Amino acid sequence: MTTTFKNVGIIGKYNDSSVGETVGVLYRYLVERQVNVLLDAGTAQTNPELDMPSVDRDSMAEQAELIVVVGGDGTLLNAARSLAQVSVPLVGINLGRLGFLTDISPDALKDCMDEILAGNYLEEERFLLHASILRNGEHISESHAFNDVVLHKWDIARMIEIDTYIDDKYVSTIRADGLIVSTPTGSTAYALSGGGPIIQSNLETVVLVPICPHTMSNRPIVVDANSKIEVVVGTSHSAQVTCDGQINLGLVAHDRVVIKKHPNPVRLIHPPAYDYFEILRAKLRWGGRLEDKG
Amino acid sequence: MTTTFKNVGIIGKYNDSSVGETVGVLYRYLVERQVNVLLDAGTAQTNPELDMPSVDRDSMAEQAELIVVVGGDGTLLNAARSLAQVSVPLVGINLGRLGFLTDISPDALKDCMDEILAGNYLEEERFLLHASILRNGEHISESHAFNDVVLHKWDIARMIEIDTYIDDKYVSTIRADGLIVSTPTGSTAYALSGGGPIIQSNLETVVLVPICPHTMSNRPIVVDANSKIEVVVGTSHSAQVTCDGQINLGLVAHDRVVIKKHPNPVRLIHPPAYDYFEILRAKLRWGGRLEDKG
Amino acid sequence: MTTTFKNVGIIGKYNDSSVGETVGVLYRYLVERQVNVLLDAGTAQTNPELDMPSVDRDSMAEQAELIVVVGGDGTLLNAARSLAQVSVPLVGINLGRLGFLTDISPDALKDCMDEILAGNYLEEERFLLHASILRNGEHISESHAFNDVVLHKWDIARMIEIDTYIDDKYVSTIRADGLIVSTPTGSTAYALSGGGPIIQSNLETVVLVPICPHTMSNRPIVVDANSKIEVVVGTSHSAQVTCDGQINLGLVAHDRVVIKKHPNPVRLIHPPAYDYFEILRAKLRWGGRLEDKG
Amino acid sequence: MTTTFKNVGIIGKYNDSSVGETVGVLYRYLVERQVNVLLDAGTAQTNPELDMPSVDRDSMAEQAELIVVVGGDGTLLNAARSLAQVSVPLVGINLGRLGFLTDISPDALKDCMDEILAGNYLEEERFLLHASILRNGEHISESHAFNDVVLHKWDIARMIEIDTYIDDKYVSTIRADGLIVSTPTGSTAYALSGGGPIIQSNLETVVLVPICPHTMSNRPIVVDANSKIEVVVGTSHSAQVTCDGQINLGLVAHDRVVIKKHPNPVRLIHPPAYDYFEILRAKLRWGGRLEDKG
Repeated sequence: MTTTFKNVGIIGKYNDSSVGETVGVLYRYLVERQVNVLLDAGTAQTNPELDMPSVDRDSMAEQAELIVVVGGDGTLLNAARSLAQVSVPLVGINLGRLGFLTDISPDALKDCMDEILAGNYLEEERFLLHASILRNGEHISESHAFNDVVLHKWDIARMIEIDTYIDDKYVSTIRADGLIVSTPTGSTAYALSGGGPIIQSNLETVVLVPICPHTMSNRPIVVDANSKIEVVVGTSHSAQVTCDGQINLGLVAHDRVVIKKHPNPVRLIHPPAYDYFEILRAKLRWGGRLEDKG
Repeated sequence: MTTTFKNVGIIGKYNDSSVGETVGVLYRYLVERQVNVLLDAGTAQTNPELDMPSVDRDSMAEQAELIVVVGGDGTLLNAARSLAQVSVPLVGINLGRLGFLTDISPDALKDCMDEILAGNYLEEERFLLHASILRNGEHISESHAFNDVVLHKWDIARMIEIDTYIDDKYVSTIRADGLIVSTPTGSTAYALSGGGPIIQSNLETVVLVPICPHTMSNRPIVVDANSKIEVVVGTSHSAQVTCDGQINLGLVAHDRVVIKKHPNPVRLIHPPAYDYFEILRAKLRWGGRLEDKG
Repeated sequence: MTTTFKNVGIIGKYNDSSVGETVGVLYRYLVERQVNVLLDAGTAQTNPELDMPSVDRDSMAEQAELIVVVGGDGTLLNAARSLAQVSVPLVGINLGRLGFLTDISPDALKDCMDEILAGNYLEEERFLLHASILRNGEHISESHAFNDVVLHKWDIARMIEIDTYIDDKYVSTIRADGLIVSTPTGSTAYALSGGGPIIQSNLETVVLVPICPHTMSNRPIVVDANSKIEVVVGTSHSAQVTCDGQINLGLVAHDRVVIKKHPNPVRLIHPPAYDYFEILRAKLRWGGRLEDKG
Repeated sequence: MTTTFKNVGIIGKYNDSSVGETVGVLYRYLVERQVNVLLDAGTAQTNPELDMPSVDRDSMAEQAELIVVVGGDGTLLNAARSLAQVSVPLVGINLGRLGFLTDISPDALKDCMDEILAGNYLEEERFLLHASILRNGEHISESHAFNDVVLHKWDIARMIEIDTYIDDKYVSTIRADGLIVSTPTGSTAYALSGGGPIIQSNLETVVLVPICPHTMSNRPIVVDANSKIEVVVGTSHSAQVTCDGQINLGLVAHDRVVIKKHPNPVRLIHPPAYDYFEILRAKLRWGGRLEDKG
């Protein structure tokens, strides 16, 4: 069989040894098909029993034509951030519990990979956010986010005040626990808990969701993802920026967080039967269609 | 003075004689500037004291290069729908209470019109929705909406069941009082009361907002405005479709409502100082910027 | 066996012949235990195959010491309203799908009834609302509600304006699709879809939930159930009052709806293992306890 | 003039010298009326220019028959907590911006105090919560709250898991940013930002409001204030308990927070014209009555 992808990377969930079995199955599956496998070094460390050669993230980024991520959505978020500079296609295999991003179950692994390696797959483009923090006009830190950039109070007893600007235009000042700036991918994660809408995954929009705002008319706002979004901490209280719930950057009063769409897309690969709305229905436990009902 | 617009239509709010004064001021202002004024026939009837020649809506659509709407947002919604086939620029003058669409106050009328006639204005494109109703596969009625197409229970004691499809893909079945399909323009109207997000006015997206859904995870969904949206009434109860809260179409079980973006844009003209977020802040009574606070 | 209850009524869901089987089982079960059974006349008509003597609702109210309701929550709501004048204990048996009020499954019917007839049961008191409509100061109609009294727009295209008074004190004027006045029993029904809180079933409180209010700070308000609540329709648009989603009363502008707690409690009987929070968790699909998780 | 209250305490907002003027006016006013004034020691320190004798909080608690609090709602919350052991009547004077609890403006100070000293006032009882923290079954810390006891994640990147029990019955497990346990007094504060209902101030109920819950059906629950409420931190992540946004207590996994109504009521004194709903309308910016509208 000729495969579309000759060099395939594997990244497994860290600090979770249950991932080893699926990674092992996947590894042997790919080797059988004469695919050159690039195993992530960190994954190899977590699963010493795999006993496979491994590569660092940069080498994988250079050589892989496809990267299979095994774990939960958090593992895929992490992979997408770390590979932001190269738009290598990513495919997600979950460990038994359906994810929004890791939509292939271990049971379907071989069938789905057969299809994908045969070039029979769906590809969709999503986007990352890039957040950079300016203090007194100087860039002091930065990060990427695939789900969301969250500005949150740090001293938890008090609300913080946040000024928001879109393309240098003043939007609003909110007093709140924080503000979520979410991609469509993140709209079904923390932003949804905060009261934001679901955003179809392919839209080039970002939603700003205030967390527990003092003023009830401070509602989620959907804006163009190609805008420059700036949020400014306006009080003397300290705050914190968190990307995808995983990376924390400290803030002091008057720091500016500048958020833009990353220029390189994230390319997600799905098996041909992938249905975004089916995953939504399953994950959000919506009821079935009328004809299915009693 | 040379003006950009030689033929300018005027449409005033119907059944509200208070509109006559501002229409009169506007009329005389335009005549002084050698503009050919086309007064809407219905507006002329509501304000017989104006004693001006008038034209029907079709003639206005053909001849006007700019149409000034005097009234509230409802008057502008109505004008935009009735002029859907021609994309004549519209400008909105309110009767003293700021509107989202009628953003020029009577006090600023002359100054703003001076600017606009001198070619000094902002133009933004928005879009209308087109809703058509199919019964047993046959088209039975249709309408346009600038804010929203609302499917609502008619027999008010019971929830209705609604199936939704996007581009022929099944999305969900909700049990609810109804479903709002809203443009960005409508996102600050009824959709906001129903719990939807604010959507920046220039985005090509539509939001589907369930009204009092039985299942709490049935949340607003933002989708591509270029999609075909279909909503199907699934119960034996009768329902009704309302466009912009003004036009009603009856439905029976299994009727399909097909909603698409109208191909012709609505062109809104604003004075140069127009600021979308400023209007949002004023209308939603958001607090001021940090430096403005006590 | 001596039983606590010598005369037991049975009321089954109307217009649903599937109720007949469970009613039949219950009937024979009670007869075997020398209980005098009073079958509701309407239920007997729906299920002619039962071939049992039946009584009208008034006779049942006079003679029954316990009434078993077989059906869904709607059937029990209906029974509670029709028996408002007498506080006969009610017990609810569902037809296979757990209800908030009909908490005994057909499978558990005999075991639960054994316990109840042996005097081993929990009794809780809930309350009904009484709504009366005044037009020009004259009482024109009235009804009871166990879940909620809902004031709703009738001409569906427009919001209505509603003034609310608590114990003759002016509370607020809202522009909305309507207003739900809900008991704790109703707080998990329509009021929850409208954004209201869950209210523990034994509290003597009522919650007022505005439906799609125009002003976002018009939030649900929990008030004393012993208050006199008055809602007044303030616009020229017609509205409608619905009790438990089943009884409709028409309204015109300036009609006053006076809502009070009914003086007689509703007495609900549960088997000893009854757990209100367990039913909440099951009905609202809350996740399990920490120790139950993977 | 004989006054009802011979010994009146004054507590002013700390760390805000603007309070001095109003405290001075109040002091001289009371002295003129032969009232024995007890100035809070901390307030005296903040305002050395007042040059008055002062007493510590315990002496004030013993001697005062009425305590006038000058400041914002936070100052009154603080006073109520510190005086929990004695139910001395409290009256609140704001510094120019209406509070929910500090309802007398400086302009109305003399008129309102004239009424109150003449025995012409309204008294209402509210309640405090008492929170105690148990670690491995041992009581380790405690505090009072007039608004709310808030359990909040401390490590902000992750949701926490919280088990809730009412009177030793298991209610639910939520994954959320935290949980607000609020009195009716606190229902218009942080609990409202979190999506809770407004609760009429005199009700003996408490509302549990999850903060950004992962599961959308985890809604606010209103329970009896005489219940024992227990919340247990269920994850390995650390959390924090905050009372009235002012007092912080650290938590580790499996700590139990036991929350009960304090046995002593808070007695609030209002001028005769006090109207709870009027304050609600003003603070939440609700629109006016129908007859007031244009």
